[in-house]
Amino acid sequence: VSFRSGERATADELKMNVSLILLDRETSDFGGVFTRNRFPGAPVIIGRKRLDEPAVRGVLINTKISNVCTATGEADAGALLTRLADILGARPEAFFPASTGIIGWRLPVAEMAAALPGLAASVDSSSLLALAKGIMTTDAFPKVRSATVGRGRIVGVAKGAGMIEPNMATLLCFLLTDVAVPREELREHLAWCVERSLNRLSVDSDQSTSDMALAFSSGMKGPADPGEFREALLSVLNGLAFDIVRNAEGVGHVVRVRVEKARDEQTGLGIARAVVNSPLVKTAMFGNDPNVGRLVSAIGDYLGNAGLSVDGNRMVVKMGGEEIFGSGCFRLDAGKEERLSAYLRQRVIEPGRKPWPGHDLTIDVDIVMDGSGPGVQVLGTDLSYDYVKENADYRS
Amino acid sequence: VSFRSGERATADELKMNVSLILLDRETSDFGGVFTRNRFPGAPVIIGRKRLDEPAVRGVLINTKISNVCTATGEADAGALLTRLADILGARPEAFFPASTGIIGWRLPVAEMAAALPGLAASVDSSSLLALAKGIMTTDAFPKVRSATVGRGRIVGVAKGAGMIEPNMATLLCFLLTDVAVPREELREHLAWCVERSLNRLSVDSDQSTSDMALAFSSGMKGPADPGEFREALLSVLNGLAFDIVRNAEGVGHVVRVRVEKARDEQTGLGIARAVVNSPLVKTAMFGNDPNVGRLVSAIGDYLGNAGLSVDGNRMVVKMGGEEIFGSGCFRLDAGKEERLSAYLRQRVIEPGRKPWPGHDLTIDVDIVMDGSGPGVQVLGTDLSYDYVKENADYRS
Repeated sequence: VSFRSGERATADELKMNVSLILLDRETSDFGGVFTRNRFPGAPVIIGRKRLDEPAVRGVLINTKISNVCTATGEADAGALLTRLADILGARPEAFFPASTGIIGWRLPVAEMAAALPGLAASVDSSSLLALAKGIMTTDAFPKVRSATVGRGRIVGVAKGAGMIEPNMATLLCFLLTDVAVPREELREHLAWCVERSLNRLSVDSDQSTSDMALAFSSGMKGPADPGEFREALLSVLNGLAFDIVRNAEGVGHVVRVRVEKARDEQTGLGIARAVVNSPLVKTAMFGNDPNVGRLVSAIGDYLGNAGLSVDGNRMVVKMGGEEIFGSGCFRLDAGKEERLSAYLRQRVIEPGRKPWPGHDLTIDVDIVMDGSGPGVQVLGTDLSYDYVKENADYRS
Repeated sequence: VSFRSGERATADELKMNVSLILLDRETSDFGGVFTRNRFPGAPVIIGRKRLDEPAVRGVLINTKISNVCTATGEADAGALLTRLADILGARPEAFFPASTGIIGWRLPVAEMAAALPGLAASVDSSSLLALAKGIMTTDAFPKVRSATVGRGRIVGVAKGAGMIEPNMATLLCFLLTDVAVPREELREHLAWCVERSLNRLSVDSDQSTSDMALAFSSGMKGPADPGEFREALLSVLNGLAFDIVRNAEGVGHVVRVRVEKARDEQTGLGIARAVVNSPLVKTAMFGNDPNVGRLVSAIGDYLGNAGLSVDGNRMVVKMGGEEIFGSGCFRLDAGKEERLSAYLRQRVIEPGRKPWPGHDLTIDVDIVMDGSGPGVQVLGTDLSYDYVKENADYRS
């Protein structure tokens, strides 16, 4: 993968990092997916315009201030890109801006501009780790995933720590590949894969004003089978999605809800999201309580609000593989409750604990309905004291 | 108002209360509104059928077990009503069952039946307070509201403590009036008023499997103006809704979100609910943090997901009457932040603290858009340590 990245701290007080993704040359094969939030930040507004550029060269990323809801947001980002382009002998329009951090503050343009020459000089093509670290805000660890496909690779980095400092919980994701994927095809793959990965995790149930995922293909290693490319891209994005969910300090458990045989895909996703976002289910998971009543109530609440009916007698709910609801009744006994509580306790993510191969730290909730929809899954988290603490204390 | 109520504890271990609402005679002028949850309990299933009865006489209510998702739920409730009817010389079909408590457990029918003679003998028409106390579960105080209309009154009692022990957080509400309101008119008033009161509060964002609101008119004091009756009924229900939200131990603040000039009523309600249910807004309120970014992000997230656009430059957001967002930018300065933080601290509901006339304990968030929809309001709560504690510890 031919790119360079670098980072440079600016004003000490802000502890802002500025990072750069710099392709060796412009590429026309790039794409982006942006937040659907109706009050997007300047980087999202500018990024959407960049999709019409014939070719681009990279991304300028800063932490600490998200450049959202200020009167001068677009001008501030534009001034920085112009300065960067001057230094690199490139076009300002060849760069995407990306920002994460506090909403409502102006970017410190002069201080950031002063850091750009050093940043441009520091770019390094040996590893993405510096970039993955440079874009971290409250992330507990850098997030890098890769996959091989054809004769090349896809590498991705991301940041996002929704459970803590949520105004900084912007999800930024950058994907680089040396496989040759034509522009429109790359955009289709990106939209399809993001919909099935980053858009199927839910920590705070909000999408921020600044979320974006950008992809760039240098094409240096030639083409690959489109189906294999899509599969590889999805695996990279799913890996990053899992990293994001399990990341934050406030997370005690990752909850994976899989729904099969709902009426259709949308209904399946609706049910899965309702369960994952239910404060009552989330607190029960935090308390290692296999609380069937809350699960069933959350499902029934969603279906009722959506005006959908379902034959509850034909729905089966499992946790950790054990049936806990079926034929309209609870399927619990003392032994099963004990096993499930142990199952939940085993899956607690202690600070610093990381999943290792073969050891899955998710709580699995499987819901099988009686329809014909495809299987879907959504990742979420429990709701812990730390979540409240980190979020209530943020700004004070 | 001609009714009687009583309560009687059954098995000590369960600490279950059984209460009875007994009208002096059957009335054909009654109505009910039930949960939309698709997995309703036996009392809701039976209650819906009761709406077709020519006349009814009362309600048998129990706490501790909600009679939901068991194989024998309807039969168990039916057996108890048959026993009650035997004792009173009435028809079993003349009684509604109502239950609140744990999902998935069977009612202790024999123990409850043994308590019914004493309960029937204990009914008392002097005050609703015994009833309001008898149906409490984790409620911190009994909830009774009344209003005068025409030559009569409307009195209402309710229970509901969503912030703690949410499997018991069923919202039960019983309304009694001696104003003569014909059956169909009463049902229309009830549906209209519940939609604008109980259905516009959100604590856990779930509706339980057992929620119900029932209304009975004895007609003894003759008719009243329909518009005045509706207004009085709405005031009783709004009072009960506020009592329910401010009730629970886990609540630090009551948050009232008012939306004006949205595109339409549904959009206004969607925006208000999105703000009230946002975990990020809720934790900020708990932390006494006038966090404009989270408010704006929650609104933008809702609008984006709903596929609605809005001119952010024409939206104004106020907290406690102070403009905090306008013309697409934050309207904050140090002095305003300090005032708003003080405003939030003043409104903390300390344990045992009750609002008194003229002292409003809600945090007001007012959102004015540029559409033509009617004004709407939704009540919610903050998200506190106690919320997580009570909900995570419930069953362990």
